[in-house]
Amino acid sequence: MRIGVIGGGQLARMMALAAAPLGVRVHALDPAVDACSGEVAPLEVAAFDDLAALHRFADVCAAITFDFENVSAPALRELAAVRPVRPNPLSLATAQDRGSEKALFARIGTGVAPFAIIDDASQIPAAQSTVGFPAILKTRRFGYDGKGQISVADASLLEDAYTRLGQAPCVLETRIGFQRELSIVAVRTQEGELRCYPLVENIHVNGVLSVTLAPAIVSSALVEAAESCASRLAEALDYVGAFAIEFFEVDGQLLANEMAPRVHNSGHWTIEGAVTSQFENHIRAVAGLPLGDTSPRGVSCMLNWIGELPDRNQALSVPGLHWHDYGKSPRAGRKVGHATITANDRAELRRRLKLAAELLGRQAQVEPALARLG
Amino acid sequence: MRIGVIGGGQLARMMALAAAPLGVRVHALDPAVDACSGEVAPLEVAAFDDLAALHRFADVCAAITFDFENVSAPALRELAAVRPVRPNPLSLATAQDRGSEKALFARIGTGVAPFAIIDDASQIPAAQSTVGFPAILKTRRFGYDGKGQISVADASLLEDAYTRLGQAPCVLETRIGFQRELSIVAVRTQEGELRCYPLVENIHVNGVLSVTLAPAIVSSALVEAAESCASRLAEALDYVGAFAIEFFEVDGQLLANEMAPRVHNSGHWTIEGAVTSQFENHIRAVAGLPLGDTSPRGVSCMLNWIGELPDRNQALSVPGLHWHDYGKSPRAGRKVGHATITANDRAELRRRLKLAAELLGRQAQVEPALARLG
Repeated sequence: MRIGVIGGGQLARMMALAAAPLGVRVHALDPAVDACSGEVAPLEVAAFDDLAALHRFADVCAAITFDFENVSAPALRELAAVRPVRPNPLSLATAQDRGSEKALFARIGTGVAPFAIIDDASQIPAAQSTVGFPAILKTRRFGYDGKGQISVADASLLEDAYTRLGQAPCVLETRIGFQRELSIVAVRTQEGELRCYPLVENIHVNGVLSVTLAPAIVSSALVEAAESCASRLAEALDYVGAFAIEFFEVDGQLLANEMAPRVHNSGHWTIEGAVTSQFENHIRAVAGLPLGDTSPRGVSCMLNWIGELPDRNQALSVPGLHWHDYGKSPRAGRKVGHATITANDRAELRRRLKLAAELLGRQAQVEPALARLG
Repeated sequence: MRIGVIGGGQLARMMALAAAPLGVRVHALDPAVDACSGEVAPLEVAAFDDLAALHRFADVCAAITFDFENVSAPALRELAAVRPVRPNPLSLATAQDRGSEKALFARIGTGVAPFAIIDDASQIPAAQSTVGFPAILKTRRFGYDGKGQISVADASLLEDAYTRLGQAPCVLETRIGFQRELSIVAVRTQEGELRCYPLVENIHVNGVLSVTLAPAIVSSALVEAAESCASRLAEALDYVGAFAIEFFEVDGQLLANEMAPRVHNSGHWTIEGAVTSQFENHIRAVAGLPLGDTSPRGVSCMLNWIGELPDRNQALSVPGLHWHDYGKSPRAGRKVGHATITANDRAELRRRLKLAAELLGRQAQVEPALARLG
């Protein structure tokens, strides 16, 4: 069985590595001839909007999925007429548009920060009066990893911010003073079975994920709230595959921030830290196979490598450290790899993290996780 | 960094899957255009004795290893002049020859069943008088998985057995009434660091591995004896990489049966059942990287799929079951895949194994492992 992945980045690469033992072959389509999934799986080089190429690609695949959000939803809808597309184009389209996404969160009763849609300048006054400040103005589309957004300190600065974002359709939301950023990865089959991974805590730097601590050290009430949110969201979209929801924890409550209609960076720890990885479970769901156990194995901490990899030999000498080089050349801001440190308990994880921080000169990156581990 | 693997079977395939996250690329060389490692890594199609092709292959690799035993040792010696060959040709040559292998076991003080070399018919009378019967006559070379060997009930039948094996150089050994078959996988770096995986119990059917239970339920004295044997063997050969030693347990003692100068079927459980798999550690050793932790994670049972795969959907519904399809077409006697069932403790493993046996109709295969788990 062959699964087609639109996008050939590190997520497609990790899907391919997880799919091979299942007897499932991943093929990726990407415009870059050196897309990093190409090291481990066949790569079709074509533009994402080349419909003829997408059709040829779909013709040789049993089902289609994608590894990033900026795939063309109309193109996916066309492919969905000839092959199963999982998750479905509606799920992608919803996640691509912060307006639709927030409206969905509100509709299914998930807590969400006060927000207003600004599709044109005439909606600015209403937004100024309904959304508290300081606020953040975000383009409805094409934003990720902190891109396409501007802080707005008070109402008088909104018009200027809107102009700076090119008067694109936007969402204005109240800046929330949160205690923690949490996320949950879940996976759902075509038959509607849902399995959730543990709720995890994320630490972002400059809007980009830096560290994930799994499981998060939280109350069972928060876990239940996150799982309930994942379940309602997946039902509403008739979602198939893995997805993530990012939350802010505010005074013991969860506010949904955004969803990702794909395997997610905050789920990379599942490769070694859970019985079945998010990549394997995504492939299982897309291929119509039964889901695997999402239980954690011990405790884990994922460290993202942004821009360049630290010293590999030093890293590999840390007990329980698992190295993931994506095969990408170094570039400022680029996700080039990650490491997951696994341990039997928090005390052991803390010792290993501390050792890793020292050997790799990554004290600043690791410090917030050490603080959590006490 | 690129590592060349001579042989493109399932062992090379699992090496390639383990190597990719390390930033190490595996290239395999195999005469079969459909060698199964080719699904996940570049494949050079050439005969194993094509020295020109082997040299071209070595030229683009940082180091050379192999995934099966019948590689030409003289060819490896030639390659060793231009590239590091790990393990070294001496290790391969020793393992290829049951005579040299048993002599090495005896030399390093490892227990071994009484044996005699029969390189020509003139040595038959001496063998008849020094080796107890019933015995087994094995060709010194080119035997694996029970091939190239004949049972010899009493001394009078030896000459006939020798003729039936084509009068090839042979080893005659006393047939041992053993309680269990055990094996240990270990890995050693160029600097001489050795790490051992837990001693495991193996169940063979018709000379082919059927089930591995990891760790074996044995005394610490047996574990120490096996580790000591692994250490002395690796030192004697200046071995680099992963290897296995198979033992018979006889009245609380270990008798070494044979060694494999490569990753080993009885170590497949390490992919999910140990912190670092044998495949990753072999690649680490061959690439000159630090070794990873060989500790077990919970308890595991590996089931080999010989000839054909059982039903995948049924298998994947067993909690903790990890599926490994090698991408090979079914054929009687062929190793086409395996599954490893992991669990937190023996009671949980027993329940999962029992469920797997029922769902897959594999009661006979699983029964001996269930008996061990009590």
